[in-house]
Amino acid sequence: MDESGIRALIFIGDGLGDRPVAEFGGLTPLEYQSTPNLDQIAKRGECGLMDPIAPGRRAGSDTAHISILGYDPFVSYTGRGPLEAMGVGMTVQRGDLAFRCNFATVKPRADGTLIVVDRRAGRIAEGTAQLAAAVNEAAAREKASRLKGIEFVLKESVEHRAALLMHTEGAQTPCTDVDPHDEGKAIWTSRPEEPGASAESAEALNEWVRLTYEVLKDHPVNQARVAAKKKPANIVLPRGCGVAPHLRPFAEAHGTTGALVVEVALIKGLGRYLEMQIIDAPGATGGYDTDHISLAKTALQALEEAQIVLCNLKCPDLAGHDGLAEKKCETVAKLDECAGVILGAVDLDKTVLVFTGDHSTPVSVRDHSGDPLPLAIAGHGVRSDEVTRYGERPCAHGNLGRVRGHDIMPLVTNLLGIQEKFGA
Amino acid sequence: MDESGIRALIFIGDGLGDRPVAEFGGLTPLEYQSTPNLDQIAKRGECGLMDPIAPGRRAGSDTAHISILGYDPFVSYTGRGPLEAMGVGMTVQRGDLAFRCNFATVKPRADGTLIVVDRRAGRIAEGTAQLAAAVNEAAAREKASRLKGIEFVLKESVEHRAALLMHTEGAQTPCTDVDPHDEGKAIWTSRPEEPGASAESAEALNEWVRLTYEVLKDHPVNQARVAAKKKPANIVLPRGCGVAPHLRPFAEAHGTTGALVVEVALIKGLGRYLEMQIIDAPGATGGYDTDHISLAKTALQALEEAQIVLCNLKCPDLAGHDGLAEKKCETVAKLDECAGVILGAVDLDKTVLVFTGDHSTPVSVRDHSGDPLPLAIAGHGVRSDEVTRYGERPCAHGNLGRVRGHDIMPLVTNLLGIQEKFGA
Repeated sequence: MDESGIRALIFIGDGLGDRPVAEFGGLTPLEYQSTPNLDQIAKRGECGLMDPIAPGRRAGSDTAHISILGYDPFVSYTGRGPLEAMGVGMTVQRGDLAFRCNFATVKPRADGTLIVVDRRAGRIAEGTAQLAAAVNEAAAREKASRLKGIEFVLKESVEHRAALLMHTEGAQTPCTDVDPHDEGKAIWTSRPEEPGASAESAEALNEWVRLTYEVLKDHPVNQARVAAKKKPANIVLPRGCGVAPHLRPFAEAHGTTGALVVEVALIKGLGRYLEMQIIDAPGATGGYDTDHISLAKTALQALEEAQIVLCNLKCPDLAGHDGLAEKKCETVAKLDECAGVILGAVDLDKTVLVFTGDHSTPVSVRDHSGDPLPLAIAGHGVRSDEVTRYGERPCAHGNLGRVRGHDIMPLVTNLLGIQEKFGA
Repeated sequence: MDESGIRALIFIGDGLGDRPVAEFGGLTPLEYQSTPNLDQIAKRGECGLMDPIAPGRRAGSDTAHISILGYDPFVSYTGRGPLEAMGVGMTVQRGDLAFRCNFATVKPRADGTLIVVDRRAGRIAEGTAQLAAAVNEAAAREKASRLKGIEFVLKESVEHRAALLMHTEGAQTPCTDVDPHDEGKAIWTSRPEEPGASAESAEALNEWVRLTYEVLKDHPVNQARVAAKKKPANIVLPRGCGVAPHLRPFAEAHGTTGALVVEVALIKGLGRYLEMQIIDAPGATGGYDTDHISLAKTALQALEEAQIVLCNLKCPDLAGHDGLAEKKCETVAKLDECAGVILGAVDLDKTVLVFTGDHSTPVSVRDHSGDPLPLAIAGHGVRSDEVTRYGERPCAHGNLGRVRGHDIMPLVTNLLGIQEKFGA
């Protein structure tokens, strides 16, 4: 870490960007809502628009954060599986295969074929931890024999959801889904994604799925469910295979320490994978009721621990998904209060502040869109521009122009004075 | 070359970009200094910001010029060695291995191991040309036998520095340093950089290093040094291996003639490598005392010789490295006088003028930074915009937006009307 003592805080409003809202006279929530602190940062800083991936490209929270943390998402992103596994707190290792899974209900046909009755096992809400433990115990027992030496670890998530990791010292081959995606169908047989590739991983996966059925069909949790006229969670169906990407740890990639203060398990998982410090803010729930002031204060404290801190306030994204324009304004006001707490605490001569979003979640779309985000960078070394208001359209006039998510880290490490020169 | 007679002059202020300077009320030297001629070019032209590599990325002069001359630096740049060799005037051929070297002092241990006593041979200043000649003579003699058919050419640079080229018709494998980087250590044995690759180049290099010791230890230059109680330059220690990149010659890449009028040996070397004309300006020293008017006039003359001329004024970079804001303003004034000479001489209907820098060297950083450069393009075919002042922030408002170093040549060849169509 640099001895100058300069630190950087990257503050992300999740799903912050939006589109014109008719009831706001065509302004976006961010443009409509009064945001004196964010405006102050825009005024003292340099502004622009940021595409998390590329112009018009719809980003996920995962790909956007990968990009903002300085990795090329086109190279690094191999599917949802590994990030899902990170998100539920699993320790993912580079090269692991990872899957999203459902606990599901199957019924054997006369010939033994397993037919999917319910892909969500009656939206099972309790007992999945015990089911996963039973599956993992059996998998450990059968590792050397049926599972070809591959370690299978299942971890339950919310409701019927779970994540599966396949780990081995040797190379693994991505494989296709077992989940047939429709009810009334037989479960699929997994095969290598690339025709002609080694079938070992796929064969072990099929064996493991069969094992989950054997272990779960008469498990006490399921006996109780059947007795209560609920559907048994008698199988685990993997889908969305991804290979855990070879991302360099954050400290190695950027030559300094990094910490995350975030509310979303998925982003925490990514941070753990990058070997960043994960610092939890008391009262940060990830919901509308989050203690956003605690989040901002924790981010400030994190600057004592790491030179670069990324903080994510989740609630603007919720309001976008819920399609609630007024509610989105309230979350924008919370972001502005965070900015106020931070502006009141830091010395801008010794700090670099970045305020942006990870993707747009317009209330009119109720999902992520490919619209760019406002970006303001203020503090040490910044050539401030004439923009005086924070927002999608005001920031578009700024001198940063239009940059991309993965430009953020070079912009920051340049200002921190810690970036390796490319050339002589 | 095109028959229309339209020519382009790309004028680079080395290290031109800067950051806000408190004593200038937060303006940069370029914004603070009066620059009527540069402003005229901005006013008559189209402006923007230029990242030599990518937003926030710190460029070297070498990578920046590679980029501005139209080559992708991520593909083309393989390390300092080849450019260092070009810089001392060596003829580098594609595929050659090149190294930076030091003349150093070693002392043999009882077992024959050579221990580095002084990595700079007492900062030897004289006689290195004779030492290099002796080494080259011995290497030519031993080429077929000890040196495995590889041609080794050493060329002295300033003080204890030198460059080494390894040339052969066959393929060569990059190899690791012989210089142990610390005194009191034994010299290292070079190995292939990639484990498992052919060791032939590394073995020949180790043999050559041993040969330099044999040739130099009793050389008259060193006998005289020892008699004068100076450390003998009794070995040459290579480091920083690079493979000369496969850059297409300028004329082949751009379909027209190119010339350089530059003050820095490194850039001259790059130009020779690209088979461009190198035209020296009388009185151009590369220092603060350079005859910048001569430089500008020589650039104008060069436009008679080549359709595209790149000219580089070195002194703004010196002021940046020296951390002298007032001095940087003086160098900016010199750049402006160059612009005046050029504006007074060319017909803008028949000329394309590009004024930019290769990288920022802010006086507050005293080194290269990743901040973008002002860019103004005036003349034939340009859709001029509303920018009326040249400078980092004024140019940011221009219609060129934010472009990259390797966009410059396509922008220029487009205006010259000589660019191949991509498609039909």
